[in-house]
Amino acid sequence: MQENRVKALWRGGGVAVMCGCSIGNTYASEIMAHAGFDALMLDQQHSPVDWAAMTGMIQTIAGTGTEPFVRVPWNTPSDIMRALDAGATGIICPMINSRAECEAFVGACLYAPEGYRSYGALARYTNMAAGYVAKANANVLPIAMIETREAVERIDDILSVPGLAGLFIGPSDLSITMGLDPAADFSRPDLLPAIDAVFAAGKRHGVANGISSPTLNDARIAIARGADLVWAGSDAGHMRAGARAAMAEMRAHLKR
Amino acid sequence: MQENRVKALWRGGGVAVMCGCSIGNTYASEIMAHAGFDALMLDQQHSPVDWAAMTGMIQTIAGTGTEPFVRVPWNTPSDIMRALDAGATGIICPMINSRAECEAFVGACLYAPEGYRSYGALARYTNMAAGYVAKANANVLPIAMIETREAVERIDDILSVPGLAGLFIGPSDLSITMGLDPAADFSRPDLLPAIDAVFAAGKRHGVANGISSPTLNDARIAIARGADLVWAGSDAGHMRAGARAAMAEMRAHLKR
Amino acid sequence: MQENRVKALWRGGGVAVMCGCSIGNTYASEIMAHAGFDALMLDQQHSPVDWAAMTGMIQTIAGTGTEPFVRVPWNTPSDIMRALDAGATGIICPMINSRAECEAFVGACLYAPEGYRSYGALARYTNMAAGYVAKANANVLPIAMIETREAVERIDDILSVPGLAGLFIGPSDLSITMGLDPAADFSRPDLLPAIDAVFAAGKRHGVANGISSPTLNDARIAIARGADLVWAGSDAGHMRAGARAAMAEMRAHLKR
Amino acid sequence: MQENRVKALWRGGGVAVMCGCSIGNTYASEIMAHAGFDALMLDQQHSPVDWAAMTGMIQTIAGTGTEPFVRVPWNTPSDIMRALDAGATGIICPMINSRAECEAFVGACLYAPEGYRSYGALARYTNMAAGYVAKANANVLPIAMIETREAVERIDDILSVPGLAGLFIGPSDLSITMGLDPAADFSRPDLLPAIDAVFAAGKRHGVANGISSPTLNDARIAIARGADLVWAGSDAGHMRAGARAAMAEMRAHLKR
Amino acid sequence: MQENRVKALWRGGGVAVMCGCSIGNTYASEIMAHAGFDALMLDQQHSPVDWAAMTGMIQTIAGTGTEPFVRVPWNTPSDIMRALDAGATGIICPMINSRAECEAFVGACLYAPEGYRSYGALARYTNMAAGYVAKANANVLPIAMIETREAVERIDDILSVPGLAGLFIGPSDLSITMGLDPAADFSRPDLLPAIDAVFAAGKRHGVANGISSPTLNDARIAIARGADLVWAGSDAGHMRAGARAAMAEMRAHLKR
Amino acid sequence: MQENRVKALWRGGGVAVMCGCSIGNTYASEIMAHAGFDALMLDQQHSPVDWAAMTGMIQTIAGTGTEPFVRVPWNTPSDIMRALDAGATGIICPMINSRAECEAFVGACLYAPEGYRSYGALARYTNMAAGYVAKANANVLPIAMIETREAVERIDDILSVPGLAGLFIGPSDLSITMGLDPAADFSRPDLLPAIDAVFAAGKRHGVANGISSPTLNDARIAIARGADLVWAGSDAGHMRAGARAAMAEMRAHLKR
Repeated sequence: MQENRVKALWRGGGVAVMCGCSIGNTYASEIMAHAGFDALMLDQQHSPVDWAAMTGMIQTIAGTGTEPFVRVPWNTPSDIMRALDAGATGIICPMINSRAECEAFVGACLYAPEGYRSYGALARYTNMAAGYVAKANANVLPIAMIETREAVERIDDILSVPGLAGLFIGPSDLSITMGLDPAADFSRPDLLPAIDAVFAAGKRHGVANGISSPTLNDARIAIARGADLVWAGSDAGHMRAGARAAMAEMRAHLKR
Repeated sequence: MQENRVKALWRGGGVAVMCGCSIGNTYASEIMAHAGFDALMLDQQHSPVDWAAMTGMIQTIAGTGTEPFVRVPWNTPSDIMRALDAGATGIICPMINSRAECEAFVGACLYAPEGYRSYGALARYTNMAAGYVAKANANVLPIAMIETREAVERIDDILSVPGLAGLFIGPSDLSITMGLDPAADFSRPDLLPAIDAVFAAGKRHGVANGISSPTLNDARIAIARGADLVWAGSDAGHMRAGARAAMAEMRAHLKR
Repeated sequence: MQENRVKALWRGGGVAVMCGCSIGNTYASEIMAHAGFDALMLDQQHSPVDWAAMTGMIQTIAGTGTEPFVRVPWNTPSDIMRALDAGATGIICPMINSRAECEAFVGACLYAPEGYRSYGALARYTNMAAGYVAKANANVLPIAMIETREAVERIDDILSVPGLAGLFIGPSDLSITMGLDPAADFSRPDLLPAIDAVFAAGKRHGVANGISSPTLNDARIAIARGADLVWAGSDAGHMRAGARAAMAEMRAHLKR
Repeated sequence: MQENRVKALWRGGGVAVMCGCSIGNTYASEIMAHAGFDALMLDQQHSPVDWAAMTGMIQTIAGTGTEPFVRVPWNTPSDIMRALDAGATGIICPMINSRAECEAFVGACLYAPEGYRSYGALARYTNMAAGYVAKANANVLPIAMIETREAVERIDDILSVPGLAGLFIGPSDLSITMGLDPAADFSRPDLLPAIDAVFAAGKRHGVANGISSPTLNDARIAIARGADLVWAGSDAGHMRAGARAAMAEMRAHLKR
Repeated sequence: MQENRVKALWRGGGVAVMCGCSIGNTYASEIMAHAGFDALMLDQQHSPVDWAAMTGMIQTIAGTGTEPFVRVPWNTPSDIMRALDAGATGIICPMINSRAECEAFVGACLYAPEGYRSYGALARYTNMAAGYVAKANANVLPIAMIETREAVERIDDILSVPGLAGLFIGPSDLSITMGLDPAADFSRPDLLPAIDAVFAAGKRHGVANGISSPTLNDARIAIARGADLVWAGSDAGHMRAGARAAMAEMRAHLKR
Repeated sequence: MQENRVKALWRGGGVAVMCGCSIGNTYASEIMAHAGFDALMLDQQHSPVDWAAMTGMIQTIAGTGTEPFVRVPWNTPSDIMRALDAGATGIICPMINSRAECEAFVGACLYAPEGYRSYGALARYTNMAAGYVAKANANVLPIAMIETREAVERIDDILSVPGLAGLFIGPSDLSITMGLDPAADFSRPDLLPAIDAVFAAGKRHGVANGISSPTLNDARIAIARGADLVWAGSDAGHMRAGARAAMAEMRAHLKR
């Protein structure tokens, strides 16, 4: 088990770039695995990527130098442990709103005594990698999504859970719970104070600061405000944007 | 069964824009179906899109105003008829190198007496659309790939097959069989004479002129030389280009 | 996002007819989508329809005028939110036995401030439909299954949860928990008092009254007693009944 | 390997009843396997049932007393041999129009010296059944579809191929190639002479007479004219008919 | 519904032999179903076997005389009920650490009044087997995994839950929570006292004693200490061992 | 594109060891890919491995040092080219019985001017590996199965086709066409003369000599007689043997 590239980047003070994978298809994921990102986030929460697709996708990412992270559907032990068994090296967990939820989440990511992750000798990853159990707790990154007003209010409680490696702000849901427009970008002044408050807490607790962003410009704004993990779009987003731009260009050329 | 949008465009003298689908996944194909193309070409020849994937993809494209075309793996009756049964409104057939091959291809696309397509009452499309058989021959577009030196030499023989709706030049294979670089673009002078000769034959025989192109600029060159059907990249191509550009931009911003 | 056909029917005092889908296959679901039902209930609780199948099935139902409802496996946020992200316009949730369970269920169906549903910009449905978030809470129908003696006893508590659109009696489970035969029909007198009591509560709370029924005759009995949503069998049930009747008819004709 | 139930029926002068399977799903095929038919015809020609689906479907049919037959996509050795390897006990081959085509078809169904079927020790069926090779040639039923005017004209040539077990008339395609309406039933006088001529040839050559039929009434007409193998609809057909009838009945009851 | 072979063995004082299935593939599971085991444990916790795979696998095991058991991903009602609906005749539930967890688990396996399992008339198994509901509670085996130090401490509390049929020690996780090496075998003295204590409790409560074991020798040790259910490896384990041994043998023969 | 390990072995006079893959599952194929074989032969002829499965399996084998070979279903251009596009580095083609069949086969494996393989820029492999086209003809191994009496008689004709890299004797089919028992091993004297004759021809033509074998002992016999490529069982075979041996051992221990 090689050292987690994102963890290594963070230790050196670097910023990790992560891209989303919503297309549950190994032909597509293999192309994404060779695009150079630090991590890919296979999205089981908001896309049709299911357990079967996830396993195949991780198989195409493992060994390429890009880390396979999984956003699990919810904070449930089996969703988290199955992703780890399949070879995920980071877990993004949605909707962590309290210290108890964060403890349950982090515990599911780690073997005892740090947590309560269950070991399976023939899980894909333990099967592939000798000595996995001894290294897993140090190498796997539990990352909690902070995406409600409630979570912002309890941020110190949440981030003080031992073993939590990072946080990842979900600005859309955070905006909805704060009564703001979920599609707006980071140039507006209304959301930034909450982002700043969360990032400040992340620094206090030694937890890496991550954030999803609608655009690359928003990612740059986030870096300027202290982000350690930023979002560079998704497979489906890049596909859609490129396809629409191509058709628009042809349409303009053909004057129709 | 609505009139084929590409056929209608051609009748009005327009140029149809087609994009490829190499990702066998209905979440992705549905996004592509809403990108505005005149046709999508589901690629069963050079991608992992298989029969099961094709059926689901066509289901997400049917009814959106974009025509679902299929590039079949080879000139075999069952591959062609299964794509049509699933609802394909155009068939792109690789490697048509002789009149006999073209006759076999076109015949597989059409019910008797024009051809020998077999009818199935519970095929997806006949099942969905009342009166399908009566309209299918007029609505389905058989399009032959011209992609070898041999095919160029026999172009009049090939294009004179009754019922052939279009041709589609494969410049990579044509280049390989002519001893040229398969990856080069249309600005080089070596391939253009062959393209011009084929397009001239297309005009003579009343067959629409199509061509695949490495870039949108090449598509524009093709339009200037008489193309009726051009290529605007593929799902995987747009996804890869967008992903790599995003990472490059972030890498540049982060100075690493 | 068009107005929910079932909601529109209910507003006009009409009765909605729903059919079940237990066959996880898009060829079958597309046929069912064109059979004219007001809604199809994709059954993730008691059939092999899984997440991957559900997504494809909804893609074949969306846009046909029939509403894609999903019976989720259990009252868990991720099961509910994934179905909604895929485009479900109604959620049938099994085994709602208390007000707290109903609140958790309804909250998972609605964005803040009404609930705690998480937003994903590249979920299938938000991806497809501009302005989805603003309209979703008004259009999506949370429907609680009432199927235990305990739930009948707490019916006013359960139905008073704000945002609950409907109830759906499960007569088999209700019979089992009441010590009655789970397969019996509605002509027997033992189950009807419980049904009447629940429907009366539905009327009191302005919640639509739904019920599953073994036969169409039972559906007619339910309508006579106040049902707003009835069951017209399932894909597998209709297939099995038709197949067995055909073989019986041939067997009789062949005298064997 | 048990004796083929259809072969046994034929030996006793009986008529076999076959139902089609167009839904590529093992939950559905298992229900169909328990409906009592003599054979199920998994349709790879005119439905989305592909190789993967076929294998699973045969696994649910094998051992139930119903014979798993496969209609292959076309007369190609690999399609035929893969179906047999998976456990098909009868092969229905479309569009047999000449003696040479029939020889190629029958040969693909039989091991040498009768044919040229290839043996695989780990194919599903040889793997499951000891002594398979010794019994397979006697137990497997090659059945040729007669569905063009050309085939009717060459019927004696075709049926005289040694090893051919049966014929199966495709009345829709036969009608199309004869210039008749493909959807009409057997009560019309125009198609019956061709059917009679083919059945008479079947009797002459000791080949079982089969025919697809639009309705059960047509199956009865076919039996009266000498059919040994008749069609009792399909999974999708029964599902669709039952679903539409149920909605029609509810619609009538609700007066809308 | 035939009597559960494992239950019958236990009643006669016999030891049941169970093998794991981690390969989610029906071709493989059908081979395993004919290998003679008393039960196969489809592993949804530590392998990629998902819901879709599980259903097909059970279809290939049902009727062969080997019992299809499922290890569910976690103690959640829907995971348990879906496995039972698909035809599982035993449920192995991970990480049962308290009486409350055991009650929730056993309740999900049984219909009322013994439990709260929900009934579905078109679930695969109820669909296939007449009279299923009446016999299910007596035939289905709920088996709790005992695999933490905490569970060992509360063993009497856990095992006294009515309806619990068996326990299954997970020695790897138990070792991890006790601070021991998870890969060690049963010949070491450190883990055996815990195993003996659990087995003694099993005897006290009339609950069958099961245990997973790294090797067949460990299974023999377990039998000597009172096991009623032992582990004989897994599909993937046997495949891997055989493949590596074959290559080693060839490598030795070729002297490389 | 790295040099083909099997080709390198052959150049050095070594014997390559190949194992079969009949289980169409990436979890299993990844385990097989780490078992140390020189090549794995994904069997599309005699197992349920279809196109979709093949692609995923190759993705798990590529990069491990084991070569992914594919046995195509039959000698058809699209089956061959799709396997190569997916990344196969060797093609085993069944039933090559004449020089014309061998020419068609080898031609489908090679780009012009050596053959007529079609190029696709977004095929999995060309997509992954820069410069693929220039190196592919030299790196891909076309291997013809010699498995009929007819092929043995025409062996010099067949082996003289330029570009053919190897032959692979199928002893079962060869036995059947010679009237011998297909399951017998190589210690019998009847089949060995044919094997020797074919191997002698292989040496004459500079074509590597391969052969399938029922047991490892037969593989050793084959090596002694000049084989360059031998068979070391299959995934399913090793799984089945290991499972049966384990059950037999437990049964013996339990004396039942």
